[in-house]
Amino acid sequence: MTNYQIDVQLSKNKKEKPAFDQLSFGTVFTDHMFILDYTEGKGWHDARIVPYQPITLDPAAIIFHYGQTVFEGLKAYVTKEDEIVLFRPDQNMKRLNRSNSRLCMPELDEDLAIAGLKKLISIDKEWVPNVAGTSLYIRPFVIATEPYLGVAPSKKYRFMIILSPVGAYYKEGINPVKIAVEQDYVRAVAGGTGNAKTAGNYAGALKAQEAADKEGYAQVLWLDGKEKKYIEEVGSMNVFFKINGEVVTPALNGSILEGITRKSVIELLNHWNIPVVEKKISMEDIFRAYNDGLLEEAFGTGTAAVISPIGELFWQGEKLVINNGETGALAKRIYDSLTGIQTGVAEDPFGWRMKVE
Amino acid sequence: MTNYQIDVQLSKNKKEKPAFDQLSFGTVFTDHMFILDYTEGKGWHDARIVPYQPITLDPAAIIFHYGQTVFEGLKAYVTKEDEIVLFRPDQNMKRLNRSNSRLCMPELDEDLAIAGLKKLISIDKEWVPNVAGTSLYIRPFVIATEPYLGVAPSKKYRFMIILSPVGAYYKEGINPVKIAVEQDYVRAVAGGTGNAKTAGNYAGALKAQEAADKEGYAQVLWLDGKEKKYIEEVGSMNVFFKINGEVVTPALNGSILEGITRKSVIELLNHWNIPVVEKKISMEDIFRAYNDGLLEEAFGTGTAAVISPIGELFWQGEKLVINNGETGALAKRIYDSLTGIQTGVAEDPFGWRMKVE
Repeated sequence: MTNYQIDVQLSKNKKEKPAFDQLSFGTVFTDHMFILDYTEGKGWHDARIVPYQPITLDPAAIIFHYGQTVFEGLKAYVTKEDEIVLFRPDQNMKRLNRSNSRLCMPELDEDLAIAGLKKLISIDKEWVPNVAGTSLYIRPFVIATEPYLGVAPSKKYRFMIILSPVGAYYKEGINPVKIAVEQDYVRAVAGGTGNAKTAGNYAGALKAQEAADKEGYAQVLWLDGKEKKYIEEVGSMNVFFKINGEVVTPALNGSILEGITRKSVIELLNHWNIPVVEKKISMEDIFRAYNDGLLEEAFGTGTAAVISPIGELFWQGEKLVINNGETGALAKRIYDSLTGIQTGVAEDPFGWRMKVE
Repeated sequence: MTNYQIDVQLSKNKKEKPAFDQLSFGTVFTDHMFILDYTEGKGWHDARIVPYQPITLDPAAIIFHYGQTVFEGLKAYVTKEDEIVLFRPDQNMKRLNRSNSRLCMPELDEDLAIAGLKKLISIDKEWVPNVAGTSLYIRPFVIATEPYLGVAPSKKYRFMIILSPVGAYYKEGINPVKIAVEQDYVRAVAGGTGNAKTAGNYAGALKAQEAADKEGYAQVLWLDGKEKKYIEEVGSMNVFFKINGEVVTPALNGSILEGITRKSVIELLNHWNIPVVEKKISMEDIFRAYNDGLLEEAFGTGTAAVISPIGELFWQGEKLVINNGETGALAKRIYDSLTGIQTGVAEDPFGWRMKVE
């Protein structure tokens, strides 16, 4: 890997670290952050690590008006050998660039982004929590910073990485959730931005989440925007079903996010010789399988929860209770294997772990 | 109107004003801005006018990650009697609140927003340009400011109004543009955020605009996300067609923005007893009318251009040249009437102008 010039300005006022056994999600940030600026004509410049601090932007900056922004989410873990490891960061940086392209934003040097991330983590290494189930959540993001109210791609951007120690997603072990199938709101449609990791997808999804919450459901299952028949995602995760011994997941269609956990689950199942198929799946297919007693498991996949078993699906007045509302054996096996690889407890036959020096 | 408490801190370093006959769009801002903050449990608080200055936000602020934000756009004009007038600001603030609701954001006191706007303009009144065709562009917007990486509505927001003197949209008189009908990208779909004025809609549209630009087209005509058959909007404007003496515009369907210029055009046509119909219109309908020699005019409507005549539509390899590529008589009449009302040159039978004291 190239030896990148990354300036470092260390914090003089180190913050107090939270108790690692009492962490929540995304509220506490480490002592430093990584910054890289872009100016049209000059390209990306001034890679640097500085104390974590507020950003100062013109009120007319394009990010505040036209949402030209992309982001990623990944995690770092401490192994039992006290090494800090990342899970497939190359995949995140590749996807960040695909998102950049969709949003008319300049692509980054993926290796520089990873070099910056590693250096940042090594500086803030005491912030990587070492309690079972905890991790260091990593948020790389790019924002359009040019002050301009015309609707056009920005001529200036800022790429940043911030870090947040996060608690175990499952405080009392992996636990199934109840999901409502969304009938009114739509997350994304082919030709839109659904397969890019960009702010607008998340802002638009809040309203459905709020309605589901009121009815006692943890998340919504999104159907396609065209016919409201085909399954897309669950909350902000990809979704898998085990039907009669075969695992199925919606095929990537332009409106579904290409999840890195999704990809890893497919690769893991292939490795285990468990049949897994990516295809168009209607909610009617799922209901039919359920009625026939063939719907064995359902689970979401994403960076935050890794695997999130679905205990109940609510659809058109019907409650589909899956696997007696309990975590399925396959979901558990995938969860244990993936978190085992991520935290260094298990072998890594795929080369998914990347060491932070 | 209630007498609102709005603190004022005047700028000590007034900026140099640009030459009002050489203004562009959205690059120059006035000396002051209006701010109103929201905190969960406390509501909206601390209405104030301060010198125009950068905003300082935590890098984890929700606006940077999940795009929870809404905005408006409207204009102020100087009349020949040297009065400053706004065009239907009540409609903008109503729409801002509809957008707020869609994005799970707290509603504002519309009267306070208008009172703040009027006070801000009266302080920066020397910035309202008085050259023919120019105006003061007004950008109210709300951003989610809570530093939190969980996907949930923010508990803190900031409402701001910034002002920008802008030049004539048509430097050499109202002029038709060439438009490409978009076949690949989709702006919005029913159940999404298309009828809210929110950042993500604009970010997602950049890619199509970029492609159209390369082919020599000024904007794209958006089709519906479900069947890619029905006409929705043009660029970031609503769209009207005059077919065999009747004016038609796509009916509001949940994915089309409820334009205030659109609404004003419909009201104006009704006032003139010119038939105008809101309905579902397919691109095939337009092509058929064109082939039958019945497509008399086409134009976009929006705050920036007011009326933007369409001289050519490119669709599936066909070039539809409308009204010989010239501005139609109706488009011209509407443009003259609306800008006449806006700038105080014409009578205002509808009560659309609002005076700034």
